[in-house]
Amino acid sequence: MTQTAKGRATSPDAASTGFAQSEYRARVAALQARMAQSGVDVLLLTTAADFYYVAGFLTRFWESPARPWFLCVPASGDPVAVIPAIGAELMGRGWIEDIRTWDAPFPGDDGVSLLAETLREVSATSPAPRIGLPMGLETQLRMPIGDYLRLTAMIAPAQCVDATDVVQRVREIKSEAEIAKIRAACGVADRAFARVGEYACPGARLDEVFRRFQMSLLEEGADWVSYTAGGAGPGGYGDVISPADDRRLAPGDVLMLDTGAVLDGYFCDFDRNYAISHVAKDTAAAQAALMAATDQVLGHLRPGHLACDVHRMFAEQLRAQGAVPGGGRLGHGLGLTLTEWPSFTPHDKTELRAGMVLTLEPGVEIAPGRCLVHEENIVLRESGPELLSSRAPRDLPILSGGAT
Amino acid sequence: MTQTAKGRATSPDAASTGFAQSEYRARVAALQARMAQSGVDVLLLTTAADFYYVAGFLTRFWESPARPWFLCVPASGDPVAVIPAIGAELMGRGWIEDIRTWDAPFPGDDGVSLLAETLREVSATSPAPRIGLPMGLETQLRMPIGDYLRLTAMIAPAQCVDATDVVQRVREIKSEAEIAKIRAACGVADRAFARVGEYACPGARLDEVFRRFQMSLLEEGADWVSYTAGGAGPGGYGDVISPADDRRLAPGDVLMLDTGAVLDGYFCDFDRNYAISHVAKDTAAAQAALMAATDQVLGHLRPGHLACDVHRMFAEQLRAQGAVPGGGRLGHGLGLTLTEWPSFTPHDKTELRAGMVLTLEPGVEIAPGRCLVHEENIVLRESGPELLSSRAPRDLPILSGGAT
Repeated sequence: MTQTAKGRATSPDAASTGFAQSEYRARVAALQARMAQSGVDVLLLTTAADFYYVAGFLTRFWESPARPWFLCVPASGDPVAVIPAIGAELMGRGWIEDIRTWDAPFPGDDGVSLLAETLREVSATSPAPRIGLPMGLETQLRMPIGDYLRLTAMIAPAQCVDATDVVQRVREIKSEAEIAKIRAACGVADRAFARVGEYACPGARLDEVFRRFQMSLLEEGADWVSYTAGGAGPGGYGDVISPADDRRLAPGDVLMLDTGAVLDGYFCDFDRNYAISHVAKDTAAAQAALMAATDQVLGHLRPGHLACDVHRMFAEQLRAQGAVPGGGRLGHGLGLTLTEWPSFTPHDKTELRAGMVLTLEPGVEIAPGRCLVHEENIVLRESGPELLSSRAPRDLPILSGGAT
Repeated sequence: MTQTAKGRATSPDAASTGFAQSEYRARVAALQARMAQSGVDVLLLTTAADFYYVAGFLTRFWESPARPWFLCVPASGDPVAVIPAIGAELMGRGWIEDIRTWDAPFPGDDGVSLLAETLREVSATSPAPRIGLPMGLETQLRMPIGDYLRLTAMIAPAQCVDATDVVQRVREIKSEAEIAKIRAACGVADRAFARVGEYACPGARLDEVFRRFQMSLLEEGADWVSYTAGGAGPGGYGDVISPADDRRLAPGDVLMLDTGAVLDGYFCDFDRNYAISHVAKDTAAAQAALMAATDQVLGHLRPGHLACDVHRMFAEQLRAQGAVPGGGRLGHGLGLTLTEWPSFTPHDKTELRAGMVLTLEPGVEIAPGRCLVHEENIVLRESGPELLSSRAPRDLPILSGGAT
């Protein structure tokens, strides 16, 4: 793997844009096989991730909530795109040939009757078609709810059914081309994390640190930076989802930075922790416990484990080290969005399979309101986890403001 | 207004984080007044923009689709937050006191029964409560559709009704504090656009131009960059929503960059066009028509006009110049999201009122597959538009690669 001047990885898989048409066709075939098993006649997709996955349609325009987009995957044959006219040019560059547009946003009928007509057409061989949509945990329907209710009335006797399983069981197994893209995104973050000492030091403003971190991610080759969060506080931080404020880093603080940098539509999602000037004893103990727990899971996780098993492994190992496991999930899926199913909670029974890309994200509560969270990205192989992020140093790096 | 080393505007309104509690309370009061008029007993909000508007809750964590978030605004009294436990710390720093959490994501009941219980409690004085949600054009319900359907069954005899109008008529009128934040975000983009000549020149790769542009936006003070799009092509570009590819800019190209940079949760949204080395005659004519049409609307737009009037003004003026108006909308609202209602189409009858922040976005089709789009951001005052972006130069800036 070689680097460009800007550091972007140029391995053949990662550097190319999108995927070969054969890969999209294989994805559609896999969805159609699941649809047949589930008795779904048409799969209706509405989100950015599903559009990129099936149609190769990648744009940041989803940031505008103004217009819905629809992709209909029939029981057999190619998908049909029912989209705002503004997207026709970009969609036309991809492999989907049947592209139907309306002049969105259109008050009173924002694509609904065109979608209903298309659904009727592509399900015409079935007397009472079942239109599958992802309706379950960790899904969203990206269209006005009023329009969804109107649609269900318009397409009767066709009915909408839950197709969460159809989409999730297919998308969660990544191809080698997808894994290469996620690995490249992780590489971008690895290189940016290695440079945090250039600007994070005692006295540095947290919002400037966040800004410089994002600039580094772009410099190292990210197409864009969809997510940064973090925290800083004496010996730990209060939460992991806050934006930056203008507080200044102080000796004894732990700084955490977390990112979802995007490369060709695929995310990384991991964090790194840094000690400012020195490390408190209880923070060092928490760090050691997190490292030991991560070692344990990296060594023992195998296909066939359930999502809840990972939570159990982390919790047991952290407790064995005398640490208090953090609440919430301790890792999750990753790929076309910052987070994907499954969730490493005590309740998620999803079976882990080879080809899944996952984050390992154990957290420790050092004291009330003070935590330490560590995260790595892996792909699960038959033989166990393969790291996609470069493993974090075992001891917290100390940033003192000297030359690094 | 003074600048820090990094160029961030430090006017009192724009530099502070969030808003005074009095402003959030005024917003809730305005929503509650509209709710009373519409017979809505509880307003149920689920999106990032509505959470920031009402609760002051700002995070990039919405990028994770894993968990739904709920905010219940009762007919009187303070809102109640029903949110994943991971958000309790950050929400607790704000003004909302009643914060109820569950350990999301939770298979089988991801906050739905807690939400149903809360809705029953805050609407207890009404025998058949009406729960209002934004259901209409340009809205989304950010929760699994299966959970929404379960919720409606659980809360009967309460029923869900459309409250799009309640939210949109309140949010579309910006306070001076909001306008200051959008003006500051526009200032960030103004400064970044002024530096495009530092890296965009004949031979520059489009994806590197996009990357450098985002770095400039951060350098100039953006908290993050939620949107960049653009295009480049001989004498114009094919669309305005594409991500960058690795093509190199060539003499005769027009480069367009468009951004939604974010400052304290508020967006700018405007573009700038640049000619590479020289300008074709028909491109120059299109540019002149766009400038004249923008002059016309800046001079004549007043509160009381309808959204469709703006489309008509643009279309008439462009045709009067011999230009072909682009399809789709020619501008829209702006603020907490990259785009807000209304839409300047022939069909949108929304009345424009003082305090609305809007984009003027006329486009011209120079030839099939070749367009030029110009965009400015304004706040509508009683006396007419006040520019928030610095008006683009009348002639396309020419980038030749020499010192700028």
